[in-house]
Amino acid sequence: MRGTQQPTSPPAAYTPTDRTVPTRSPQRASYDKDLVHAILDEGYVCHLGFVRDGAPVVLPTLYGRIGERLYVHGSTGSRPMRMSDASDPGLAVCLTVTHVDGLVLARSAFHHSINYRSVVVHGIAHQVTDPAERQTALDALVDQVVPGRSRDSRPANKKELAATAVIRLDLDEVSAKVRTGGVSDEPEDLALPHWAGVIPVRKEYGAPQADADLSPGIALPDYLGSL
Amino acid sequence: MRGTQQPTSPPAAYTPTDRTVPTRSPQRASYDKDLVHAILDEGYVCHLGFVRDGAPVVLPTLYGRIGERLYVHGSTGSRPMRMSDASDPGLAVCLTVTHVDGLVLARSAFHHSINYRSVVVHGIAHQVTDPAERQTALDALVDQVVPGRSRDSRPANKKELAATAVIRLDLDEVSAKVRTGGVSDEPEDLALPHWAGVIPVRKEYGAPQADADLSPGIALPDYLGSL
Repeated sequence: MRGTQQPTSPPAAYTPTDRTVPTRSPQRASYDKDLVHAILDEGYVCHLGFVRDGAPVVLPTLYGRIGERLYVHGSTGSRPMRMSDASDPGLAVCLTVTHVDGLVLARSAFHHSINYRSVVVHGIAHQVTDPAERQTALDALVDQVVPGRSRDSRPANKKELAATAVIRLDLDEVSAKVRTGGVSDEPEDLALPHWAGVIPVRKEYGAPQADADLSPGIALPDYLGSL
Repeated sequence: MRGTQQPTSPPAAYTPTDRTVPTRSPQRASYDKDLVHAILDEGYVCHLGFVRDGAPVVLPTLYGRIGERLYVHGSTGSRPMRMSDASDPGLAVCLTVTHVDGLVLARSAFHHSINYRSVVVHGIAHQVTDPAERQTALDALVDQVVPGRSRDSRPANKKELAATAVIRLDLDEVSAKVRTGGVSDEPEDLALPHWAGVIPVRKEYGAPQADADLSPGIALPDYLGSL
């Protein structure tokens, strides 16, 4: 290897590219892998963008992360799944995950903002054909929503697997963008007679609603208590 | 007008197109204007998709609705704003808004799902150049996040207006998609020993955190109590 040493651990950051360096508020951008993974792991719904007949399409869908790979699934008949068929060169996608953390109410309309954490992934999605990787990916999709759930459900049977397509997107061209903190009004606006501050926003879970057909004696699983 | 009567009220539904009829779960799609408006009005963050160098880009951003028009704003230097400049034929976009309402935990991995409401808007975004429409749009963007807030903040000054681009997207090619209700397992799975049901998901607001520089005597406005 021409005398080079292989690193003992993977690099801690993604390499910025022209597409992942924002033109606006670049100080909010980060390429830190731990931060990107944490933002991805807190969510389970992404917005997947692809191009159809030259125009953009953005659809909400579930995702799962395993290491440096994201997986998305869908009906084999759905458009992004057909367009990313293994016989093709793959499907150019942009996968975005956003968490809203707060409303930032400034004295000036201009400085109103949102506290948020987002991850944007650019790349080529490929269909997963290896049966073992497909199964691992489907488990990851279920566990992304409720960690531990895949072990407490019936795995997909042959018919269900045949109806499901899985695509993979490597975490390679990736950036996070984060806004935190308070109001940043202009100094000359601080004495204006408008309330200013931050309204925190968070996602809450309600009480589980058991299925009416639930067999007697099935207790609420422990893993639902830690959601 | 060749003898035709103008309708006294606008049509109650958007006309489906090839792009707005989903290939998957078409029974969940709706073109009802009231439903679309209600889903849009409950949110303020959208995912805006556009095409750059042939590849999709999906960015989270704020939006505001006035009637059958959506508005998005940004720095005049940001890519989608530059790409939709008034001298151009506009920018092909897809604007998607999604609310997650619940986790649907089926006995089978395959039937796991999400209760959600989403709206997908396809169209060409154009820069807004009329000063009055720009101001109305900027007010709508603030009021989309906190209704009533635009009247309780300093409007943008000339310098701020010059730094801000506003684009408009007409609600024309639009669909909503909604999943509600409980688990839909296969009959033969109902006796499996797995808990099944729905976990409600909702967005909550925390206690307002006043800015440290808030002038004495400024009370929390009433409109924040109804968030």
